[in-house]
Amino acid sequence: MTRGPLAIIAGAGEFPLRLAAVAAQRGRTVFVAALDGAADPAAFGSVDLQSYRLGQLGRLLEDLRGRAVTDMVLIGSLPRPSFAALRPEASTLRYLPHFARAFRGGDDHLLRGVVSFFEGQGFTVHGPADIAPDMAAPIGALGRKTASTEQKALIARGFELLAALSPFDVGQAAILADHRVIAIEAAEGTDAMIRRVADLVASGRLRIAKGDGVLVKAPKDGQDLRVDMPAIGPQTLRNVAAAGLSGIGLCAGRVLVGDAAALGRHADQAGLFVEGVGA
Amino acid sequence: MTRGPLAIIAGAGEFPLRLAAVAAQRGRTVFVAALDGAADPAAFGSVDLQSYRLGQLGRLLEDLRGRAVTDMVLIGSLPRPSFAALRPEASTLRYLPHFARAFRGGDDHLLRGVVSFFEGQGFTVHGPADIAPDMAAPIGALGRKTASTEQKALIARGFELLAALSPFDVGQAAILADHRVIAIEAAEGTDAMIRRVADLVASGRLRIAKGDGVLVKAPKDGQDLRVDMPAIGPQTLRNVAAAGLSGIGLCAGRVLVGDAAALGRHADQAGLFVEGVGA
Repeated sequence: MTRGPLAIIAGAGEFPLRLAAVAAQRGRTVFVAALDGAADPAAFGSVDLQSYRLGQLGRLLEDLRGRAVTDMVLIGSLPRPSFAALRPEASTLRYLPHFARAFRGGDDHLLRGVVSFFEGQGFTVHGPADIAPDMAAPIGALGRKTASTEQKALIARGFELLAALSPFDVGQAAILADHRVIAIEAAEGTDAMIRRVADLVASGRLRIAKGDGVLVKAPKDGQDLRVDMPAIGPQTLRNVAAAGLSGIGLCAGRVLVGDAAALGRHADQAGLFVEGVGA
Repeated sequence: MTRGPLAIIAGAGEFPLRLAAVAAQRGRTVFVAALDGAADPAAFGSVDLQSYRLGQLGRLLEDLRGRAVTDMVLIGSLPRPSFAALRPEASTLRYLPHFARAFRGGDDHLLRGVVSFFEGQGFTVHGPADIAPDMAAPIGALGRKTASTEQKALIARGFELLAALSPFDVGQAAILADHRVIAIEAAEGTDAMIRRVADLVASGRLRIAKGDGVLVKAPKDGQDLRVDMPAIGPQTLRNVAAAGLSGIGLCAGRVLVGDAAALGRHADQAGLFVEGVGA
């Protein structure tokens, strides 16, 4: 079956740019739908691109159909949308009941609602790693440093912890040090959790020995990796280094790193190991 | 077997005062060893009391033996000790190797080391609830408000979460709201976890509906309730109210509340339910 163009529904950050570049390199026709206030249209270069407010869903669907788009990826971060961004155009009003239902169940429910909406409109929604597998963490070290036997044991323990939390629909990340669990992520997000540990260390309430302390990151069981894949980037590495941790253990194939080689160089500069570990 | 006097090794806060009062009411001869910089000797009234720096362990043992003490409770909070407080007297030096070993394994290990030290010296170490069962959370509401069916379901879910975390030696408390887990306590402590949720709400990153949002608190499996019993107090209630939560679910019999009636009045003032739930 021949597929039509790939639409990239693009939020903020480097990931949408990289995905567009990789897909184009592979000869795929790409259309970028840049979300207003999140994606920077100029950063995408000469690709076919249109910008949309969230309230312009009707127009987006028309443009996707006009280009015979069959496949799409939703990627990049979204700031909390303003009411102005949400203000629906006339062509969008008919779709609102779908999203009103989806909004009621929290973030995960909303994401599932977005996927089911586009699938209901006949599109196939892919995860970024389906289109560009190299954007996910590979198995092994991304930079020069590798995890020691002790650090690997902490990572394995951390993955066990995250798996135990999975039935509770929580826990994408945790920090372990000194044979114990120091921090567990819930609603605050990974960066806030890392800063919390940095604050505990700075205030003298927690001591982390050099070479100890790892961040582990993995998706929850049943997490929809098409629209909700965990991710790390250079800022994560800077935060981890600032907290005095020694490195990061990632669930290989299931955490976005974007450009693994570039992130490996960031790891080397920060003196950290960043390592993908098979689930 | 007749028992000698009960020694209360007293840190800061209301709990040591209450324990001393309850034990005396029950006709037990009480000796209070007030830890310098933590316990306030004047607050204990006319009871037999001596103050000790942490480095005066040898002198403490002599005084315990001089009074024919057989039983003891270690209770109250300890600020991070200064080097001056730790400076050992000559009569304490011989006990240092025991504590040097205990210090190496983290807080839990240290507490077990303290218990094993006093037991090795022939004393029986009790938990505060062994001496004064009323100081632990009873089953049922402490104040006028009781948990609704939905709130009870959140509490049950929270206890399941804490039980799942127990094998990882972490998780004395968590906050749930909107059918999901909002925060999990690790090294930061309960008050810091509650403040984190308050900050997420204040910054608009999290919305908690009125009547939603509960703090759950329970000991880990295998936690030594003699020296490491989870506790809440009026400040916990103020923090919970400030975070916009609706109440607190406690593992009945296994979380210290001190004066349950007084805490119930605090709950009423704060508009919260505080409820003990059977494990």
